[in-house]
Amino acid sequence: MKLEDIRIVMVETTHPGNIGAAARAMKNMGLSSLVLVNAQCSLDGAAYARASGADDILNQSQRYGSLIEAVADCELVVGTSARSRTLSWPGLTPNSLADKLALQPDTSAAAIVFGREHSGLTNDELQHCHFSVTIPTNPEFSSLNVAAWIQVISYEILNRFLADTEPAPARVSRSDSPASSTQLEGFFDHLEQVLYRTGFIERTNPRQMMKRLRRLFQRAEPSQNEVNILRGILSSVEKFKPGTE
Amino acid sequence: MKLEDIRIVMVETTHPGNIGAAARAMKNMGLSSLVLVNAQCSLDGAAYARASGADDILNQSQRYGSLIEAVADCELVVGTSARSRTLSWPGLTPNSLADKLALQPDTSAAAIVFGREHSGLTNDELQHCHFSVTIPTNPEFSSLNVAAWIQVISYEILNRFLADTEPAPARVSRSDSPASSTQLEGFFDHLEQVLYRTGFIERTNPRQMMKRLRRLFQRAEPSQNEVNILRGILSSVEKFKPGTE
Repeated sequence: MKLEDIRIVMVETTHPGNIGAAARAMKNMGLSSLVLVNAQCSLDGAAYARASGADDILNQSQRYGSLIEAVADCELVVGTSARSRTLSWPGLTPNSLADKLALQPDTSAAAIVFGREHSGLTNDELQHCHFSVTIPTNPEFSSLNVAAWIQVISYEILNRFLADTEPAPARVSRSDSPASSTQLEGFFDHLEQVLYRTGFIERTNPRQMMKRLRRLFQRAEPSQNEVNILRGILSSVEKFKPGTE
Repeated sequence: MKLEDIRIVMVETTHPGNIGAAARAMKNMGLSSLVLVNAQCSLDGAAYARASGADDILNQSQRYGSLIEAVADCELVVGTSARSRTLSWPGLTPNSLADKLALQPDTSAAAIVFGREHSGLTNDELQHCHFSVTIPTNPEFSSLNVAAWIQVISYEILNRFLADTEPAPARVSRSDSPASSTQLEGFFDHLEQVLYRTGFIERTNPRQMMKRLRRLFQRAEPSQNEVNILRGILSSVEKFKPGTE
């Protein structure tokens, strides 16, 4: 499905700041459709302050008097729940919810439903959801702020949708290409010669020390430019003349 | 490593509400160590209101005057960045950051560093981080609220640590424990001094070169023994007396 067809539904929210923060989180993550069910507050200055520029999401938000109306045209309705209920409910993680959304056909609409600040969704409201999603939390302090909930779910959704649309995950970019084995060996030879000259390596048993240094530099996977820099350093040391012992 | 050894560091935060929301997000996700660097506000009623019961995190938060002090004893320091910088930095996703933390030894401490509400971390502050982490966002609206950042990162961390019920994947064996931030900084200072002496660094613009060298060595995540070896090499170079030019 498309990101714009994923609706965030907030039920009986009491703090305008939470609605604003939700709008910001949504827009950060590429979502745009916000629905307020029986909101217990108006979208005042506090809402816009916390939206921090996501005013369009607030301005275009839709209001409904009941959850049933708000999700009437949605093929997939997912309720959020702080913990698994007594009755076993088809439970999703944020990650598996994102997978499920990505697999929906392009023509469908989905709603993710978030409950009241203090009491979440009622069991009756959860009955109208096809699935529930739970965020793993510290069992001793499990009540997330509703906008934080929306942030985490939206983040997982965008992550999943980006993985779908983008070519292979780009390797951490390097300003230039990795050094070849030959270039690295050239550096290690040079390093060994310089360490003889400075007296750091004893001629008797240099192998152990070079082994350790090789491990360290190999782990960094130096680029060609970086190998050139390291060899420039070695050359600058070579220009020194040892003082009289 | 353990969840309690993961430190959340907020730099020059201006809104107490953001600190409170961060504390709540942390506690929800099982984190407990909050550090404020040069906070631009006090922990007032707004902070405690948004903490919503995570008062202990606020009460136990520690204050430092500089980032360097705040992370001095941390083996792993990760900065948050809204987008990849011009110079390629070893970049992590929230997910790969969580993996990396889970693989750190039980004795180590890590810091995740979050910048100012409006401008994030300075390039100089990012220089002190071994890695940076970026959250994928809508490119047209990419500035996340700092507490939302902390929520997403903490969520990924808890997720990863909960998944770790199986025995930890064996860490690539190191002969000894990772160098602390202070030890690494000591090495970089020493390296810079020596590179001045050998003439490799011009006194006019050393910053760019040190930047590149920091990246290279940070990527290798040197152990304490390895830092000692590197400093031994530097000392052996210092014993040289420059020849007459």
